[in-house]
Order: sequence, then structure tokens, then C-alpha cells
Amino acid sequence: MMLSTLELAIELISRPSITPHDAGCQSLIANHLQSIGFIVETLRFGEVDNLWVRHGQTEPLLVFAGHTDVVPPGLLKQWQFPPFTPTVHEGLLYGRGAADMKGSLAAMVVAGERFVQAYPDHPGSIGLLLTSDEEGVAINGTVKVIDYLQAKGDRITWCLVGEPSSVNRLGDTIKNGRRGSLNGHLIIQGVQGHVAYPHQADNPIHRFAPLLKTLCETQWDQGNEFFPPTGFQITHLNAGEKVDNVIPGELEVLFNFRYSTEVTHTQLQAVVTRLLEQYQLNSKLTWRHSGLPFLTPAGTLVEVTQQAILEVCSYQATLSTAGGTSDGRFIAPTGAQVIELGPLNATIHKVNECVRVEDLETLATIYQRIIEKLLR
Amino acid sequence: MMLSTLELAIELISRPSITPHDAGCQSLIANHLQSIGFIVETLRFGEVDNLWVRHGQTEPLLVFAGHTDVVPPGLLKQWQFPPFTPTVHEGLLYGRGAADMKGSLAAMVVAGERFVQAYPDHPGSIGLLLTSDEEGVAINGTVKVIDYLQAKGDRITWCLVGEPSSVNRLGDTIKNGRRGSLNGHLIIQGVQGHVAYPHQADNPIHRFAPLLKTLCETQWDQGNEFFPPTGFQITHLNAGEKVDNVIPGELEVLFNFRYSTEVTHTQLQAVVTRLLEQYQLNSKLTWRHSGLPFLTPAGTLVEVTQQAILEVCSYQATLSTAGGTSDGRFIAPTGAQVIELGPLNATIHKVNECVRVEDLETLATIYQRIIEKLLR
Ligand SMILES: [Zn+2]
Ligand SMILES: [Zn+2]
Repeated sequence: MMLSTLELAIELISRPSITPHDAGCQSLIANHLQSIGFIVETLRFGEVDNLWVRHGQTEPLLVFAGHTDVVPPGLLKQWQFPPFTPTVHEGLLYGRGAADMKGSLAAMVVAGERFVQAYPDHPGSIGLLLTSDEEGVAINGTVKVIDYLQAKGDRITWCLVGEPSSVNRLGDTIKNGRRGSLNGHLIIQGVQGHVAYPHQADNPIHRFAPLLKTLCETQWDQGNEFFPPTGFQITHLNAGEKVDNVIPGELEVLFNFRYSTEVTHTQLQAVVTRLLEQYQLNSKLTWRHSGLPFLTPAGTLVEVTQQAILEVCSYQATLSTAGGTSDGRFIAPTGAQVIELGPLNATIHKVNECVRVEDLETLATIYQRIIEKLLR
Repeated sequence: MMLSTLELAIELISRPSITPHDAGCQSLIANHLQSIGFIVETLRFGEVDNLWVRHGQTEPLLVFAGHTDVVPPGLLKQWQFPPFTPTVHEGLLYGRGAADMKGSLAAMVVAGERFVQAYPDHPGSIGLLLTSDEEGVAINGTVKVIDYLQAKGDRITWCLVGEPSSVNRLGDTIKNGRRGSLNGHLIIQGVQGHVAYPHQADNPIHRFAPLLKTLCETQWDQGNEFFPPTGFQITHLNAGEKVDNVIPGELEVLFNFRYSTEVTHTQLQAVVTRLLEQYQLNSKLTWRHSGLPFLTPAGTLVEVTQQAILEVCSYQATLSTAGGTSDGRFIAPTGAQVIELGPLNATIHKVNECVRVEDLETLATIYQRIIEKLLR
């Protein structure tokens, strides 16, 4: 039985697979691909379901990677249609995960199916790597599957992650890398006191104010040919109970760097540490490094993908390294060429997430064309 | 029966009168003063007990004012002795309210009692105004009693508030006024978004950073002969959930001005409003004005009090308008001369609040000397 990309996307969206739950998405895909000759391995780590499916035994190995989990739907009353009741309306398929990334998963499965049925004895291998923990802490997901594959000697040559990379029209943008991500947790220590006796207190907000301005104004680098400039954002500030007569004793600050390859996370850490000293702040600072930057420069995978898009859509895709992290960060360090290509990202993580129905079939065609160019 | 100041203070502290509860403190005082010829009026507004006691029918009217309520004890395990079990240890009387201001109340009652027994036919009148809501919202306390007294034509000539004004030794400081207090509640509006796509968001923390620095650095005035410079303190800052991948959509700021008579609250409001415009912030700002500044310059009450302290303690009291608000702000607008004189304030609102036992008797003597100088 051959499903259309739309039918498979609808099946997947109707399963409410909020992180870390898979809700049966992976078994649906696994059963289908197994029936046409793929070898299936289910890999559960903690409460996370992962799936590794492969057709062929030899290298090169082309892997499609993605996630079955979705972010929570948010305010239900703001949804035009129930988020887990996939609905086609005026050419758009609505539902949580439609764009991020159950539409891509459907297109991958359909492309793989069509390819192996047309070329059952293709050279190399085609694989599918799925997790149900990409939108969450990502500890028991792709990173563990990669460990497993490396341990048994499976080496990924090319990897296409189905994240929604497109901006204005399908395939206009290929992500060929990602900035690094570095998180800081800062506590500025002061001395609590009555607002009428400020000389007996030490207001950590007032202490921090000049450094806050400096941090917000700093140009960390200019970026380069491949990466936009390093960005800095404060995501959380908190000091004081909600009262107007007590000077707070402590200020808590969370911040995040998305950094280019013009700096390293250790350089950024050193700059912030130096600023804290320079401003003579009594502080505690802890770091969490959530991803090195990676880059897949021009090469087989990028060229083949651009060519496939040009053939199917008649326009040239742009390369980009902007935006958030993806599981590509766990795959690139193995030496694989990694890109991301998927639907428009305008509605992801929002209410009324949707994808153009027409784009689903086009995406499957692009994916299939990429496989053909690499494995035929 | 004549109680010592210490005995009466112990009786009062043993009554756990946490705002707005009086816990029987006022009836203890009322019964005692009634038995020696004072006229008693109990004035309950809402859940707040107030007491108005007077001896004499004519002007001038000297009023002692104070509060029977205390702030909560805080962490019980940090108290050396239970907060409502008054305990004398090494010359100190420990207990919640010992310094703020049950010690003063005891001294007032004892001073008044000794005076009327020595001079039963004194000229003018002596009054005692008590509330059980000074440490709280102060809506149904002194302000309502003042309304009541004004309505019936009782005009206060001099008022001595028993707040703990002393800094290093008893009577070293007289408060002869208070700064004004103005509270601001500011919301800086931004646009929430993913930390990886800052151009699709608008970080209210980054927007506010330059203004925050300016606010913290501004010299609002230089103060004057009577008032310290106007002070500004941010008491609360909050933006964002405690996550590192979302740019918050809103920043909440609470701040407080303690202002001198060199500016008005409307001038301060205008400056902040102008700054918000100048920094082009999308904001909502609301104000709560919690007290005009007041000043009792050199004059009968100040001179008599300084003289009494000099006679009893052999040193000169300093005049001060620093520190927090007190109920004096409600009494001064009636035209009364208002000062504050009470024990050392080092331990008020803290655990292990205490007062020197010796100071209780000395304070009663100073109070009595003031009455004698004014009404004999
Ligand atoms: Zn995704
Ligand atoms: Zn007080």
C-alpha cells in the first residue's frame, strides 16, 4: 500500500506526540518501511523512543534525520482547528507538527519508499534516524543514537535533517550549519535592606545596571561568510519580591549566546568573566554549553541538494546558518556532511501551525531527487 | 498601682499583636489611664483597633502617638528567645516590638501617669493616639483617627511619635520630618520570541538597559539643610520564565523614590515620563504616592525636646529627616508640630529585636520632662 505524503502527514499529526512522547508515530513509520525491506531497530533510552531504519549494507550512507515529538499546542482556544485533528483548509494542512516536522517525516518516508521500489538494488545505504526528544532536553535522543551507531561502526556520509528551513517559499533556504549556543546563569549578590535606608543595603540591580547596558550594546563579532554575527540575549531577569519597600539582596540573570565561528565559547566566557571583574560585581556565574557551531561547506551534499531544488522548483536555494539549534549538532561531529531542508518555518511553535499541502508532495519529490543523485 | 516602664513593656510585648491585630494592648493601656482620670475613646475602623485618650479639655494639646502592632517575627529558630516571651538578658529586653515601639508606648504611659499625678490641674491637654495598623497598609489607622479628631474640632498643637529614632545612643537623634515616598510600577512591552531569531522579537530587557543605567546614575537633587538628597531604588525586576531559549515579551519594574522638599512628586513623575519617551520605550507606568514630605523646623517642640534630652542625657540631639515613613505624615498636615523620638533602631524589624532596659526608664524621664516643659 502506497500512502500519499498528505495521508501520512495526517496520520502522524493525529498522534499527539508532545515531547518526550512518540504516541505511536515511529511504529507507524517502522511498520511501513519494514514491509518494503528496511531493517528496523527501536532504541528506547529513558522515556524517549528512537528509531533507526536502514536499507542497504554498504557505504556511502545517506541518512534522513528528524523528530516525531512536537511542542505543546499552547492556548487551545486560539487554534482555528483542534491541534491534533489535522485539517485541510484553503490549501493548508493545519495541526501541531505540520511544519515542524511531521510534514518532512512524511515526505522522507514517501521519498525513501519510492526510491527503493524503483531501485531495489541501489548502491550504498539509505537510513532514517528518528527521535521523540528533539524539542526537549535532547539527552536521550539523537545524541544517544549517534553513540550507538558509532559504537557499531555505522558511519554516516550525508545527513539531511528535515527541520523547516524554508523562509518564503519551499526550498528557498538550506541550512548548512548552525551557530553555537552558550547559556549563562548569573547571580549578582547584594545586601537586602529597607528602601528608606539604602546605605545599609547594596542594591544588586543598581550594581548590575552599567554592565547590563554594556552587555546589550557589545558587538561580539562581525560574523563571517558563513555565519551571522554572534548574538546575545538576556532571557530572564529576577530580583525582589513584588514589594516597593525592600531593596532586594540578589539578582538572577539568564542569558544566551548564539555564536559564530569567529569566536569560541571559551572566549565568550572569558569576556563575560572579565567584565564581571571590571565592574567589580559580587557574582556567581555558571555556564551550560549546549552546542558547538558546525558548518557543512560547499561539497557533494550541498551541491546535490541545490541542484535538486533547482530542477524541481526552478530557483536557487540560499545557504544559511542562522536560527536555532537542531539535532544536526550531534551528527556533524561524526564527520558527516549535514544540511537541513524542510517546509516554511513561519508558523512553527505557534498556534495554527500549518504547511501548504502542495509543498508536501514537492518536498517528497525534492528528497527523492536528492537520493537518486547520491545513491543511483 | 504604678507600673514601671519595664513591667508595662513586658506586658505589651507578651501580646502577639501582629498587624492589624492589637491583641489587647490598647485595652491594657486604656484601662490603666482611665483609672487615673484620662477620657478614653476606642475607635475601630475595619479590622483595625485605634485608641484616643485625653487628659484636659483645653489647648495647647500635646499628643503622644504610636502603634501597638508589630511586624511578623520572621524565622522563629533564629530568635534567641521566643519573640512574644519578653526576656531580659544582659541588660537587654528581647521581644518583637521591644524597640518598635512597645518600649516607647510603655514610656509614654508612665510619663503621662507621673505627670498627671504630679500636676492634676495642668494647663492644656495631654493625649495619646494609638493604632494597630502602622506597619501595614495604614488605611484604617492614624489617618482615620486624625479625620475624626479634625471633624470634632480637636486641634493637635504638638505631637511626639514614639518611633525608634535613636542611632547610637538613646536620644541622639530626633526625627523632625520625613521624606516623601513615591512608588512607580512600570511595564516595558516587547515582543516575545525564540532566542535564535531575535529580529522577530523585541527584547524588553535590552530596550530598558540604557534607561536603567540612567535611572540608577541620576542625581535627583542635592537635598537641602533639612533633607538628604532624593533617593531612587528599584525594588523588583522580572522578565521571562526561567528558560534560556525564549526572549521575554515583557519586563516588570517596581521602584521607589524617597524625596526631599527640593522636588515634588509631580516633578519626579514628569522626569520619569519624559525619560521613557526619550528612550522610546513602549511602556505602561502607574504611580502610587504614599506620603508627602513634612518638616517641623526649629520651634517650641524641637527646642523643648532637645533641651529635655540635654538635661537628662547631657548630650545634644541631632535633627534628621532620613529613613522611612511613619504615621507622622498623617498628623503633620493638620498643622501640628511633629517629631519622632524613641529607642535605638538597630534591631527593628529583625530577629532578636531588643531595647536596653536602662533606656526604657530614661526615655520615660525624657518624655515626662518634655510634658513638664510644655504643660506645666
Ligand atoms: Zn523541529
Ligand atoms: Zn514603628
